[in-house]
Amino acid sequence: MTEPTESGEDLTATSRRRFLREGGAVLGGAVVAGGLGGSKLSAATENSENLPPNVPAWMKTPGDPMGSQLYGTPSPFEKGVVKNIARNLPQYLSASGRTPLQDLDGIITPNGLFYERHHAGVPTIDPAQHRLMLHGLVDKPLIFTMEDIRRFPSESHIYFLECSGNPNYKKPYGKTASDLVGLLSCAEWTGVRLKLVLQEVGLRPGAKWVVAEGADAAAMTRSIPIEKCLDDAMLVYSQNGERLRPQQGYPLRLLLPGFEGNMNVKWLRRLHVTADPAYSREETSKYSDLMPDGTAREFTFYMEAKSIITRPSGGQRLTTPGFHEISGIAWSGRGKIRRVHVSVDDGKSWQEAQLQEPVLTRALTRFRLPWHWDGKPAVIQSRAIDETGYVQPTLAELLAVRGDNYYYHNNAIWPWRIAADGEVTNAKA
Amino acid sequence: MTEPTESGEDLTATSRRRFLREGGAVLGGAVVAGGLGGSKLSAATENSENLPPNVPAWMKTPGDPMGSQLYGTPSPFEKGVVKNIARNLPQYLSASGRTPLQDLDGIITPNGLFYERHHAGVPTIDPAQHRLMLHGLVDKPLIFTMEDIRRFPSESHIYFLECSGNPNYKKPYGKTASDLVGLLSCAEWTGVRLKLVLQEVGLRPGAKWVVAEGADAAAMTRSIPIEKCLDDAMLVYSQNGERLRPQQGYPLRLLLPGFEGNMNVKWLRRLHVTADPAYSREETSKYSDLMPDGTAREFTFYMEAKSIITRPSGGQRLTTPGFHEISGIAWSGRGKIRRVHVSVDDGKSWQEAQLQEPVLTRALTRFRLPWHWDGKPAVIQSRAIDETGYVQPTLAELLAVRGDNYYYHNNAIWPWRIAADGEVTNAKA
Repeated sequence: MTEPTESGEDLTATSRRRFLREGGAVLGGAVVAGGLGGSKLSAATENSENLPPNVPAWMKTPGDPMGSQLYGTPSPFEKGVVKNIARNLPQYLSASGRTPLQDLDGIITPNGLFYERHHAGVPTIDPAQHRLMLHGLVDKPLIFTMEDIRRFPSESHIYFLECSGNPNYKKPYGKTASDLVGLLSCAEWTGVRLKLVLQEVGLRPGAKWVVAEGADAAAMTRSIPIEKCLDDAMLVYSQNGERLRPQQGYPLRLLLPGFEGNMNVKWLRRLHVTADPAYSREETSKYSDLMPDGTAREFTFYMEAKSIITRPSGGQRLTTPGFHEISGIAWSGRGKIRRVHVSVDDGKSWQEAQLQEPVLTRALTRFRLPWHWDGKPAVIQSRAIDETGYVQPTLAELLAVRGDNYYYHNNAIWPWRIAADGEVTNAKA
Repeated sequence: MTEPTESGEDLTATSRRRFLREGGAVLGGAVVAGGLGGSKLSAATENSENLPPNVPAWMKTPGDPMGSQLYGTPSPFEKGVVKNIARNLPQYLSASGRTPLQDLDGIITPNGLFYERHHAGVPTIDPAQHRLMLHGLVDKPLIFTMEDIRRFPSESHIYFLECSGNPNYKKPYGKTASDLVGLLSCAEWTGVRLKLVLQEVGLRPGAKWVVAEGADAAAMTRSIPIEKCLDDAMLVYSQNGERLRPQQGYPLRLLLPGFEGNMNVKWLRRLHVTADPAYSREETSKYSDLMPDGTAREFTFYMEAKSIITRPSGGQRLTTPGFHEISGIAWSGRGKIRRVHVSVDDGKSWQEAQLQEPVLTRALTRFRLPWHWDGKPAVIQSRAIDETGYVQPTLAELLAVRGDNYYYHNNAIWPWRIAADGEVTNAKA
């Protein structure tokens, strides 16, 4: 921050005026956030024609004309904010692209940065040719066009979506929030309550499961308990206002709020109502949880309460001691986040963070805590508590029960280490 | 909708099976939306290799690989869903691009389709070079870098933003919802409460207005009453999670929830605290309201309660009689929408629409009404009522008071006419 020596009345015409730029100015009293003051904010050290009181170059000539982007894109200065795709992917057919959580604010993930995970690439589907078939233990099997689906009564809800393999239990652990839990995003979804469509075909006695199949080359297949299908499950065609992106299942996907991402079948083409689960590859070989005694937990649907600090977080750097807001996200597949605790002393003590209203069920919740960093090494972390009373565990607690052959549903607390020079790194790495 | 004659157990391998496709199948009883049944849904009439029970072409070969889009874009089949830019713009420097409201669901506008309105094009600003100066009637004038701004405590809120010239009072009226009120969008904004920044510089006695200036070539300048600046006004740097798009003021804009769009100064570079308003071009020659007696109303900030049906709406077509959901959006600069009434009989009677929760202050609110169209000509319209009790007026009521030299703040009810063939047109055009 810089302090001018005079206050100009008309800055657009005052390029000749002189302002003193003071480095590292200490700001007065209890003004930042009502009592968190005494902080130093960083100083402007550059000396450029574009700085006040000069009129910057971009005010001297008209900007880009209207219509140069019929569908807008981010600023060229944000070109580094893209999906995070690991360089060591074994092949592109079983791959994931992570949301850059540490670069985002609020709770909505823009569609261009929504996480991806697919098993046979992203199909390009003509919505006029796409069909959804409902059959099996139903009174009247039916095939729906997209126009049929859109004629049902609609709903819109903000829900998170998370891959259950987010993150691994074994080292090496990731460096950034995105490396760790970037297979997580949140959007406003619009579609039809699945219950209405099932009522349309009529469930027959013994209908206990619905086997969902995707229209990708993997024919992704997962079995959904009928209770979820008759509760808040949706057939979704829009995301953040516009139609689904191809990577998120265009033109139709299943949305099971709070359930592991893989079950939210994309490019949905078939719902087979059955008495038993399909025991598909994706619920036996994969997406089941191997315990230390060699048995496997199957059908572990719920994403339990979890949180992570995104700012400051791994890969970032605090440029100066003083006031810093700690900000992060919390979520639970079981419902609403009730509270988030933050520790700035390596877990010795915990403070209650402020939750951004509205707190929505099965959506990301943004939390924040004002913090004065004294410039000494510190370890910061957050822990979420949901409305069921469940408390997010430590990694040690999870490993003690599950062992590290357990692959999915790692909802451990994740601490960040801050060095004396302000560098932030993964405290577990 | 199509009805198969048998229910296949394994559709991925049943391309040889035969299904009867019945046109216009009547669906049974009270199943759609609990009592709205008896509707006919449209039939699949195509005969394609991609239809069930065949395996579509896109399941027979892997799709696009991961990472083909580091920043995602919509499906090529949605290429027509873009900003709506009038072909008769006198010049690109005073231009607008409208959100295609009739193609969107929910309340969030994706950033790529957020409406645009600017007066000297879109500047490309380097955030490292951008500064915000606060001066005038303050104890300590200061210049902030973007890093300084981001160190303040942050907040996130979903608010609508609307141009006050949305739409005109004079014919010709637009054909679509976007033509009429597409200078309207809604997003989750993240930034700093302006109050905190004003506390940092310290207001001096007599501080009654803050004159905001943009860093575009128009140096867009508007005067904001100090009461708003100390209430919910924000300095915003992020929109729907990611940094602002250039068209929305990257890297920093003013956000005045519920106030006319023009005051929400983009590319914000200066806040001058004053005793009086600036009486700038944009609050005297423009953005003031000419009454029939030749006097002008100035500083008419609030966007009053308003609504519009987006589906079905102008340019769309009902393909069949029967069940159709009426869906639209309502909003008020004064606070929350309390209720929305919908008429399907040219205003003779009104029914209460369902509001999608959560209903948020100064955000779009999605409303819906189940409707059985009997196939006869009809006129449908909506009217919003906000938490102050204000009722959205008719165009005739507005014109009776204001005349048609009044240019801004047209919040009239807008009816759509549905012809016997299902075509939907502007009932006022």
